[in-house]
Amino acid sequence: MNIQIINTGSELMLGRVLNTHQQWLCRQLADRGYQVTRQVAIDDTGVAIQQAVREALAVADLMIVTGGLGPTSDDRTRDLIAQLLGRPLLEDPAVVAHIDGFFSGRQRPMPASTRVQALVPEGAMVLANAHGTAPGLVMDATRAGRAASLLIMLPGPPRELRPMFADQVVPLILKRFPLETTFVCRTLKTTGLGESMVEEKIAPRLQALTEAGLDLGYCARNGEVDVRFVARGHAAGASVAEAERITRGLLGDAIFGSEDERLEDVVVGLLRERRETVALAESCTGGFIANRLTNVPGASAVLLGGLVTYSNEAKEKLIGVQAATLAAHGAVSEATVREMAEGVRRLLGATYGVAVTGIAGPGGGTLEKPAGTVWIGVATATRTISLRQFNAYDRETFKYVTSQQALDILRRGAGRGT
Amino acid sequence: MNIQIINTGSELMLGRVLNTHQQWLCRQLADRGYQVTRQVAIDDTGVAIQQAVREALAVADLMIVTGGLGPTSDDRTRDLIAQLLGRPLLEDPAVVAHIDGFFSGRQRPMPASTRVQALVPEGAMVLANAHGTAPGLVMDATRAGRAASLLIMLPGPPRELRPMFADQVVPLILKRFPLETTFVCRTLKTTGLGESMVEEKIAPRLQALTEAGLDLGYCARNGEVDVRFVARGHAAGASVAEAERITRGLLGDAIFGSEDERLEDVVVGLLRERRETVALAESCTGGFIANRLTNVPGASAVLLGGLVTYSNEAKEKLIGVQAATLAAHGAVSEATVREMAEGVRRLLGATYGVAVTGIAGPGGGTLEKPAGTVWIGVATATRTISLRQFNAYDRETFKYVTSQQALDILRRGAGRGT
Repeated sequence: MNIQIINTGSELMLGRVLNTHQQWLCRQLADRGYQVTRQVAIDDTGVAIQQAVREALAVADLMIVTGGLGPTSDDRTRDLIAQLLGRPLLEDPAVVAHIDGFFSGRQRPMPASTRVQALVPEGAMVLANAHGTAPGLVMDATRAGRAASLLIMLPGPPRELRPMFADQVVPLILKRFPLETTFVCRTLKTTGLGESMVEEKIAPRLQALTEAGLDLGYCARNGEVDVRFVARGHAAGASVAEAERITRGLLGDAIFGSEDERLEDVVVGLLRERRETVALAESCTGGFIANRLTNVPGASAVLLGGLVTYSNEAKEKLIGVQAATLAAHGAVSEATVREMAEGVRRLLGATYGVAVTGIAGPGGGTLEKPAGTVWIGVATATRTISLRQFNAYDRETFKYVTSQQALDILRRGAGRGT
Repeated sequence: MNIQIINTGSELMLGRVLNTHQQWLCRQLADRGYQVTRQVAIDDTGVAIQQAVREALAVADLMIVTGGLGPTSDDRTRDLIAQLLGRPLLEDPAVVAHIDGFFSGRQRPMPASTRVQALVPEGAMVLANAHGTAPGLVMDATRAGRAASLLIMLPGPPRELRPMFADQVVPLILKRFPLETTFVCRTLKTTGLGESMVEEKIAPRLQALTEAGLDLGYCARNGEVDVRFVARGHAAGASVAEAERITRGLLGDAIFGSEDERLEDVVVGLLRERRETVALAESCTGGFIANRLTNVPGASAVLLGGLVTYSNEAKEKLIGVQAATLAAHGAVSEATVREMAEGVRRLLGATYGVAVTGIAGPGGGTLEKPAGTVWIGVATATRTISLRQFNAYDRETFKYVTSQQALDILRRGAGRGT
């Protein structure tokens, strides 16, 4: 099966935006057993779009075009493809009503220019856009002498494209292009181990399965490593299940979840289950841990509150860290992080007080405490643990990795009880 | 000039890694007046690579291929391209010495497999790799009846590719393909207006310039819209400057910055300039505003502290919102947001107290206050302003857009003084 993705947009070719669609769409398809053959990015000029679509149409069974469905003059994908396929554009009253409702729901007037998004090529199927105004479009682009082929146009903004693809396009693809053999894909998510360490631990014990056809892959991200099993054929399910069993035995609680679970989802879920709560005192992570937890719907049952105590004054005034502790040990120290964790727990009456204090960099480091140094503390009513880490990364990666370590202590602690 | 980028790698097509090369290379070239015509990503199989290279060779003046120069069995770019162009591979003693030095410098033995990286297609120029072992390669791929064309192969790891491109490839391109005309590119960043609204306001007044050749583009992101002007030729500078002047006149302080500036950079910069400080009380944004501000190096001079007051209790206990206010008006109300902003400002002694309280959703909404409802308040020593917004998006977009609105009040307020 030949699958082609075409990403349109001058902002792509000028390097103004990062093309996240490629990875996301390729991943969505690969996890379901479909591998993308080629991805092409082009300018949104008429010549470039029509040429790329024409070339892809000559070989593709499935073709996905992103971007250029919006209301402005550089949104030309719909028109150009309709023209190329010889289909007139007709206004769809249901789409007009949706756009009108979108603006009136936000108590804003509907700009006249947005109405162009209701134009639909004759014979195309409309994909409703739950998060914006431009609908997606599905067209049959079968050509003489070739098997059926499908052309799908999706709006450019990720928060519109992603739910539309997952909810509406995936079922369509599964129906139109059923896989010939069973396909099983399973991802386990780990944290606390590097990629080489994960491989060293599991690869030798999985060798028999990989020799029999199991595909074993690793993907290292900031603060976590994914392990992926892929198998095809009638024994696929058994092979992947056996690989998971062996891997869980070897990696134990370094595995925090599976598929697309985020560490924050797992932590909020665990705490809710146990009816436990958390209070945060963040210095160097500057609210990022609170932000990750509050990205999870229902976090309010778990997170009582958080404090961003960037200055020493805030540490003293808000959570009662003693001036003497700060003077004797400094803000980035075990003594300070323990007082922070204990202080914020007491202040908000939570099961856990979690605190971080460190030097995010690029400035602020010393020989003894270089940028990247960070202390993490977690307090319960009966004990406080503290941990020194060295996360020498750029500022945003530092915050991410540190938040990962703090959440992971909470996950392991929450699992063991207080 | 036709420029083609080819990114090779199975991990790209499986969606396991994000292709950052496209944006980075496109941006490097665009900022120097070269626009990439097409970018293609393919699997690292022989068929896919040779076909993509053959197609690009037929049209490209400059062709950049990334990945597949390393020592493992899936690194096949060098061999396949040499074969396609009919050039034998010869071992380059200088490259062997470099690889040998690379390993001995790290006190590690040189694996035999790495020696394959010293194979150079006959006639190719070697680009030294300061951060790894695989050299880059430059080949003349001029074909009969066509102007000179250049094929450049670069190693896949960004920390090897980027300095090699900037230091060695850019001078080569500037020499081989001198620009015929002046090139000017300018981006203005706006917030507070939708994409259609921005276009409606400026497009008619810029029509004379666009008809004379100015390229006008828009890029909508969450809570902001970029306006981009590109012009070429002897009048390019004047044309872009005139477009900027007109646009600034029409959009006024909806323009918060230019090029790659982020709103948080601008806000931290403005507050630092004025030696003003901020204290945050975040409910529904859950620390995201604090997180954005602390992503800016030097934010500690500006952000005194922040509170994530997710619960009513935290609102009362931490910043002194009155129980009577919460009982009479609810947590999501003008009265509450004003007390939050005033309370946190007083608590931390900041110039500005910024507060948000709302319903991020998906749950928690009522008929009167549906999910997406949010109140934003900003207090100074002398006055407090408050603003109701309706941000009906998914949870993370809600947080982003709300933080954008809050930061923008701070920006406009900070500009007008207290």
